[in-house]
Order: sequence, then C-alpha cells, then structure tokens
Amino acid sequence: MAKDVEVAEPAGTFSAKDYQDPPPAPLIDAEELIQWSFYRAVIAEFIATLLFLYITVLTVIGYKSQTDSDIPGVDPCNGVGILGIAWAFGGMIFILVYCTAGISGGHINPAVTFGLFLARKVSLVRALLYMVAQCLGAICGVGLVKAFQKAYYNKYGGGANELQDGFNKGTGLGAEIIGTFVLVYTVFSATDPKRSARDSHVPVLAPLPIGFAVFMVHLATIPITGTGINPARSFGAAVIYNKEKAWDDQWIFWVGPFIGAAIAAFYHQYILRAGAIKALGSFRSNA
Amino acid sequence: MAKDVEVAEPAGTFSAKDYQDPPPAPLIDAEELIQWSFYRAVIAEFIATLLFLYITVLTVIGYKSQTDSDIPGVDPCNGVGILGIAWAFGGMIFILVYCTAGISGGHINPAVTFGLFLARKVSLVRALLYMVAQCLGAICGVGLVKAFQKAYYNKYGGGANELQDGFNKGTGLGAEIIGTFVLVYTVFSATDPKRSARDSHVPVLAPLPIGFAVFMVHLATIPITGTGINPARSFGAAVIYNKEKAWDDQWIFWVGPFIGAAIAAFYHQYILRAGAIKALGSFRSNA
Amino acid sequence: MAKDVEVAEPAGTFSAKDYQDPPPAPLIDAEELIQWSFYRAVIAEFIATLLFLYITVLTVIGYKSQTDSDIPGVDPCNGVGILGIAWAFGGMIFILVYCTAGISGGHINPAVTFGLFLARKVSLVRALLYMVAQCLGAICGVGLVKAFQKAYYNKYGGGANELQDGFNKGTGLGAEIIGTFVLVYTVFSATDPKRSARDSHVPVLAPLPIGFAVFMVHLATIPITGTGINPARSFGAAVIYNKEKAWDDQWIFWVGPFIGAAIAAFYHQYILRAGAIKALGSFRSNA
Amino acid sequence: MAKDVEVAEPAGTFSAKDYQDPPPAPLIDAEELIQWSFYRAVIAEFIATLLFLYITVLTVIGYKSQTDSDIPGVDPCNGVGILGIAWAFGGMIFILVYCTAGISGGHINPAVTFGLFLARKVSLVRALLYMVAQCLGAICGVGLVKAFQKAYYNKYGGGANELQDGFNKGTGLGAEIIGTFVLVYTVFSATDPKRSARDSHVPVLAPLPIGFAVFMVHLATIPITGTGINPARSFGAAVIYNKEKAWDDQWIFWVGPFIGAAIAAFYHQYILRAGAIKALGSFRSNA
Repeated sequence: MAKDVEVAEPAGTFSAKDYQDPPPAPLIDAEELIQWSFYRAVIAEFIATLLFLYITVLTVIGYKSQTDSDIPGVDPCNGVGILGIAWAFGGMIFILVYCTAGISGGHINPAVTFGLFLARKVSLVRALLYMVAQCLGAICGVGLVKAFQKAYYNKYGGGANELQDGFNKGTGLGAEIIGTFVLVYTVFSATDPKRSARDSHVPVLAPLPIGFAVFMVHLATIPITGTGINPARSFGAAVIYNKEKAWDDQWIFWVGPFIGAAIAAFYHQYILRAGAIKALGSFRSNA
Repeated sequence: MAKDVEVAEPAGTFSAKDYQDPPPAPLIDAEELIQWSFYRAVIAEFIATLLFLYITVLTVIGYKSQTDSDIPGVDPCNGVGILGIAWAFGGMIFILVYCTAGISGGHINPAVTFGLFLARKVSLVRALLYMVAQCLGAICGVGLVKAFQKAYYNKYGGGANELQDGFNKGTGLGAEIIGTFVLVYTVFSATDPKRSARDSHVPVLAPLPIGFAVFMVHLATIPITGTGINPARSFGAAVIYNKEKAWDDQWIFWVGPFIGAAIAAFYHQYILRAGAIKALGSFRSNA
Repeated sequence: MAKDVEVAEPAGTFSAKDYQDPPPAPLIDAEELIQWSFYRAVIAEFIATLLFLYITVLTVIGYKSQTDSDIPGVDPCNGVGILGIAWAFGGMIFILVYCTAGISGGHINPAVTFGLFLARKVSLVRALLYMVAQCLGAICGVGLVKAFQKAYYNKYGGGANELQDGFNKGTGLGAEIIGTFVLVYTVFSATDPKRSARDSHVPVLAPLPIGFAVFMVHLATIPITGTGINPARSFGAAVIYNKEKAWDDQWIFWVGPFIGAAIAAFYHQYILRAGAIKALGSFRSNA
Repeated sequence: MAKDVEVAEPAGTFSAKDYQDPPPAPLIDAEELIQWSFYRAVIAEFIATLLFLYITVLTVIGYKSQTDSDIPGVDPCNGVGILGIAWAFGGMIFILVYCTAGISGGHINPAVTFGLFLARKVSLVRALLYMVAQCLGAICGVGLVKAFQKAYYNKYGGGANELQDGFNKGTGLGAEIIGTFVLVYTVFSATDPKRSARDSHVPVLAPLPIGFAVFMVHLATIPITGTGINPARSFGAAVIYNKEKAWDDQWIFWVGPFIGAAIAAFYHQYILRAGAIKALGSFRSNA
C-alpha cells in the first residue's frame, strides 16, 4: 500500500501513474558496504546456490545410476526420469527464490544478477559479489555430490553442461540465449513495481512462475545442451568434473545466458515499460 | 479496492451488486490506435506466442529423438514422456499469461481472443491484430525449432497437429471443441470482475488454473489430435512443417477452437452471469 | 474484511472470537427455490462433473491404448503414465473448483456435498439436486468418451472403478473411506470461516490443496480400487461401461465415500472446531 | 495488519522495524496445558502424520507391486514411478501443512518441531507431546498400509528407510542433514514474522514451498537413504516392518534430521535474522 504513494509530478503529465519506480541503483554504493544486510545477502546467495547444485546434480547422478542398463538387475524404466530432473531444477529455484527473495533478492544465478544490474536494480559491487558467491556456492554444492556419489559421479558425467552430439555451437548458444531470455523475462515481469498497481487480478506469486520458467526451459533444451541458463551452475559442475569437453563448451554457458539476460532487460525496459516512447506521447494505460 | 465502488443505480434494483462490470469494448476503438500501450500489447502477444511454440515444439521433438528405438543405443524409456509434453504446454501458458496479462491480457491464443471479443472485452481491431501477431509469433517459434533441430524436425512430425489414426473428423472436431471450452471457460472464470467481490475465500490466481486447463486437455486429447485448442499453435506448426496431412486437417484446429470458445462465452455470459434471466426476477446471490 | 465483523455477544464469553460462523443451512430453504442462482448452481455442477469425467476417463483410455503391448509397434513406455492419470484427476478438480466455487461452491462430488450437508452448510434440497446433477453430468461425460473412443472404450475397462485382484471388499471399503476423509477434511479446512481470521500467514488457496488431495489419493489407491472417492465418478462410469463386475462393486464407491465424508465432517466440527468442549471451559486460541 | 503494529522502543533504535517478533515460548507453559486448543493440536498432529504415512507408504508399496518384473504379465514401466513417490511425499506435506497450520502449526515431523523448539517458537512440553503424537500417528499410518497390503507389504520393504547398497553411514547421515536443512530452512523462511512486513512482492504461500522442499529432497536422496528427513516417518515404518536392517540404520534418521534442523535454526536466527550482529551497528534494511 505504502508503495503506491502518488508522487508529486509536473501537472498534467503521468497522471495515470499510480506507482513509483525505485531510483536506479548506483554503480558503487558505499553505504551498503557497511551494512550487515549486504553481507548477509551475499551469504544467502552462496548457501542458496550450494543447495541448488547439491539437490539438482544429486538428482541427475541418481537418475543415471538407477537406469544404467549396463548394471545387472537395473530396470531402465526406474529413476525419476528427465521429467524428474526438470522438476528438480525448477522446483529448487521456486523454493530458493521464495526463501531468499527477502534477503538477497533471490538471484541464485549470475545471468539474473547481470540482467538486474543492467536494469540498474543492483549496484555493480553487489552484482560482482553475488556472482562470486554464486560460483563458489555452486562449486561447493557439486563438490558435496562428488563426495556422496564417489562411485558414480565421474561415470555419469558429473552433471556438467556439454553440447550434445549432433548440435553445433551456434545452436547451443541460441538455445542458451532464448532459454535465459524466458527466465529473465519472467523475473522482470514478476518483480515489476508497476505490477501490483496495474493488474490486481493477476496476483504476484513471483517465485512460482520463476521456478516454472526454469522447469520449462529444462524440458525443452536438456537434449541440446543439458540446459545451463545459469553460468554458476555450469561453472561449478565444470570445476568439479574437470574434463576437457566441459571446459571447451564452457564459454557457451556464460556468453549465452548473459546475452539472453541483456535482451530480456532491453525488452522489458524499452518495449514493455517503453521508457523512450512514453516521453513522446500516449500515456494512458489500457485498463 | 477501487474496483468495487458501488455505482449509482436506480433505487431498489441490483442493490446486492457490489462490483461493477466494465462497459463493453467498442468494435473499433479509434483512441487505442494512437496509444503505445496498444502496439506494445501486440508485440507482447507476438513474443509470447513465439516463446510458447519454441519451448513446446522443441520439447516434442526432443522427446521423440530421445525415445526413438530405431536409433541404436537409445533407451525407449528415456525422454520427458507425454506427461512432460503436457507440462510443457500447460506450464508455458502459466508463465506467459503471468508475464503478459498486465500488458496485453495474456491471450497467446486466437481462440481466447475470439471468446473475449464475443464477450465484448476487446475491440474488433485489437482482436484481429492479436490474432495476426499470434500466428506470426507461432510461425517464428516453430521456425526456430526447425533451425535448431534440423536433423530431427521433419523426421518427428514437426510438432504439427494431425488427426491420429483410428479417429474420424467428427471426433477430432468434438475433442477440439470441448478442449477449448475447458480452456476458455477457465479464462472467463478467472477474469470475471464479479469474482473478487463475491467469493473472497477463493483467491484469484488467474494464470495457474489457466495453465492447468491447458495441461489437463493435453493429457486427455494428445492421443486423438495431438491437442490443438490454439489455432496459432496449429497454424504455425503447419506452415513450417508444410506437409499435406497437416494442411488437410488444419480446418479442424480453427473451427473446433472457435466453436468451443463461442460456447464458453455463451455459457459464461448467459448461464453463469445470467444476463437475460436476471432482468426477470431474482437478484439475490447465494452467499 | 466485512466478514470479520465482531458480533454482539454476552459479555465475557468468546471475546477472542474475531470471526462469525454463518448460520446453519435449513433442511428445506423455500426461498432458494425461486432464485435463478440456485438453478444456475445446479447447472454448473452438471457441467463441471461432465467435464471432470470427460477429461479424466479420456486420459485413462488414451493411456491404456498408448501402452498396450498387444498392439504391434506400441512402446509400453509411451503414454502419460499412472502419474499422468493421477494428475488428470487432481488437476481437473483444481480448475473446476476454481471455476465453480463462486457459483455452486464447487462440490463436483456427492461425497463432498454429503459432508457439507452434514455440517449444515447446504440445505437438503440443494444437496439432493446437486447429487442428481453430478450423477447425470458424470454419465454424459463418460458417454462422450465412449462416443470418441469407440474402438478402445470397452476394451480398456471404460474407466470404471473395480476392486483389483488380490484385495478383499473390506480393504477396498477402507481405502475409499480414508481417501475420501483426506479429500473432505481438506475441503473443510479450506473453507473454514475461522481460517482467514486466525492464521493470516497461511493464505487461503482453497482450490489448489483440494486438487492436490485428489491427486495424492489417486497415487496411493489406484492399485487397490482404481480410486473412487467420488460416487458420481464411479456411477457414471458404471452406467456407460455396464459390466457386472463394475455394478457388483458399486456399493463400495457409495458407502465408502459417504462414511469417509461423515467422519471428516465429525472430525472438523467436534474435534478441530470443538463445538461441544468449547462450551465447557478454555476459549483462548493458541496464537 | 494488526501484526505490523509498531512497538514502543527506545528512541532512535530499531526505527526501521515495522514488525514485531512474538516473545520466545517458555520451556513449560502451564497455561497451555489447561486449554482444549493444546490437546486439539496434539490430536491434529497425530491424524496428520497418520494420513501422511498412510498415503505415502501405500504409494511406495503399490508402485513396487505394479512394476515387479518377477510377476508374470507385469509391465515394468507401469506404476507411478519414483517421481510419483516423490510427489506423494511432497504433495501430502503441502495439503497437511495447509490443513493443520492453523490448528497445530502443521509440523507433522519431529525435526521441524525440534527446529521450532530451538528457535523458541514452541514450549518444551508442546514439542515433546507433538513428537510422541507424530510417532504414534506414523505407526498407525504404516499399520494401515500393512493391513491393506498384506500380500506385498513385507515383500516390498515396508516403506522403511535404509541405507542403500554402495553408500556408507557418513554419506547417509550427510544426506539426511542437508535434506532436513533444506526443509527446515524453508519452514523458517515461510513463517518468519518479518516476512509480510518486508517483502510484500513475495506473498506468503507457506505450505506450497514447504511441500516442494520435501518433494525436491526426495528426488535427490531416494537413491541414497530412501529419504527420511522426518524421524516419525522412519520410526513408524521401522516399527511395523521390524527388520534388523531398518533398526540398525534407524539412528541415522534421528541424528541426521535433528542436526539438520538445528543448523537451519542457527542459520536463520544468527545469520539471516542476525540477532547478534544487529546489536552492533547497521540496522537499515536493503529495500
């Protein structure tokens, strides 16, 4: 309620606007560096990314060991299935965004952090520290899986993202760009301050659609790249798995998500929010 | 809150009414044509339908390549399963309606646009432009899948809707009519202005039940028609796949959904909202 | 807000009560019989139960035809799986309760109607008419499936509930009683007027947990009875399938759900709401 | 709303605090022992844990009998799958927390009760009685499954938690600790009184993410321990199954969850809520 305060504005302009955008975050915010809430947020990103990689990669390795037809007596229909793997990724993002949104914003993904930085929602310093925390958390999470699944971890590919046979680098990059666009576009839609003011019939359940976006993209692109759309996830698995192929393809899982996040930020700011064109003429919203 | 304002009415009539229906949309609304929000909405429908087809058809093709027992070494139990495909369609509608509801209303489907046009919720011009944008978006989305899955796209049916063996045209048409009725009935229920006023114990989570309606219909009718219930989805796949069978059956996926949407609009307006009979006698709602 | 009005009460008693129970429904409410909203509710129950049976039984038959290893070329891993069938039942209840809750209360199940009648939430006349409408709707829904799936409907058991091999009648009855208890207990919890007043940290998303209750019970008891917990669903399938076994077991799917619903109504009214004991002594709620 | 009352505080300190923590629960609260609401809560925990074990273990046994390739004519792809089992556990927690949150807090798990006791949210007496009720409920729930599934219950492992082949005790303990941490961390996040005050864009859907946390952990650790993260669940199954192996490993399913819950309580209270450091300096929240 307090958020919908009508700001004093030049008479006649923007009169239909019943919400208030927060001011853009500064590049470097000296004040946040002396607050515990800042470091707490970095810790929360670390723990959340650790748990994300731990649960998801453990699911991947467990599934492959349950369905390995080379092991006598193993039923190839057993295991949680690729659908279960997609649920693991999407579901963890749902609960971790839910748990950490109030602490750190619930990014758990350098591509999301990058997109929100481009939109000036977080400072440069915060963005960099989040990304470092996310990558360290991912390494620790996958490390735990390797410790728990010694026998199977390397055998079953270590949960690393690699371009699958039959797809060229351009396709992998495209799949990562569009997949990350879907995710970051959902994040922007879910956290838009205009949202609660404009459409009260579409309630704000931010973490659920964000989790579903991750779920959906996994259903579609596991056959192409194993689905990254999260550089920390790809990096953490590559560090622990440490095979040449995973490192060779690693750039795809940084360049693709960052481009996808940038396009989503652009689409949301300049098309949907229409920063530029708004100033030219028509201001009434279509109720 | 502001929506529930009690309107001034002739004394004694409709006194139990604590909500206000918006006025019917005009057929041609000249004013909306000069607003950026109108073109933004058309763009949002284009992008949303593109993403919808991209993710869903990619899931379909990926599933079929993962489970093709003609390929040596492929485990037929692998892949996301038909359940995963149904989730892809339903889940994408959930997140895309969530993301675009505030921009364009989140139709992403010419049958939904047609139903809302019949109920006079959108103008004729808006309805037509939405449908064009949805069809173009669908073509682009399936085109991306073909570009990414060159080797498999045509081999695995291109995600096109076709009547399956063993079912006649009447069954296919009936399945599309009832399936679209389920979807558009849910859309009307979710967006009813009476809703928030009447039953505060049933909160309005519009996008989730709409996505589930799509999920449910896919579970039931994939074996019959592959499930259209969205003419843009069927048209986009047919254009890119471009085989005779897909074009021969195409009319089913336009006529069926439009009839289903029309019945849902009629059911909601004349039975549930009871426009006609209301004027004759009993006005009290059953709290 | 308006619902939480503090009622005038004898000084000193019930002072912690910040909600107001609606008065018990009369057995026969002459006034509701002359209201359109009453007949509209009966129609809505009919249509909702029709759609419920149409989608769910179509999913069951489609699944069995997709996985029939007697048909050459059929992959037994294909199809939506028993998990998909459980989703079809649970998901349809979610969307249909969501759509009809404001019109008829969204029962779609004679056992739910019976439980709410015992708790005096609906009149006897309304309860009886709802049950008739539900049974007719179920018959029509399964009839549509038979019309669409001529070749397969009888071959694959017609979606009828029957006691599976290896289970005796007592087990079947017990499974139906407990399964319906889970469902009706959830319905009572979701619609408790005390709810919104007491625990604001548990928001009221009535249709979703009700749908999940149906989903859960199907996962557990499909191997025992095929899962009824809804006499209209069992009756409609038995009428259209019309084989001796389905009729022989039919009583289980009426007696079981009605007993389960009665226990749930008793548990909610006398243990959780504690009607009797409340009058004896301690009135403070545990915040 | 009433919860956000600004408390009178020493001038200048905590001025940004717009919520009020409830006072810590006493170890022994004599007053609650004479209230019906206390015993009602214990009964609700008993019934909820009974239903939890009944549905979930019935799903496990049913799945194994449906996919047993030793039985002639059984299709190994049949059954709800491990994904269905994970849904059964997660979905039941969702609906049972939803139903009982307003009565008992909806613990249904001694580890959750232990964590909330450590955080001083429940008294010692309440915690102990809840745990006794949960264990008795679990025994009764699994007992019902054994009564219903005589032929299969012992044959298919009785739903008991055991360390799987190829994993040592340390790994099993670690998996239980981290799994319970995920669950109890979600519980703390969902019930934080700071929550509604701080981030109104992240609505409080407590039961859904809690259910998903259980779902996720099952996807990941069923291959290692069968997934306990709930001592009552493991104890109830061990009592009814009563084989040496289940008892030998039983300590893992008490020690692991209690350690995990304690770490989650510590993490939430001392890192995220920052009790200690708060007193030292920076009090502003990062909006």
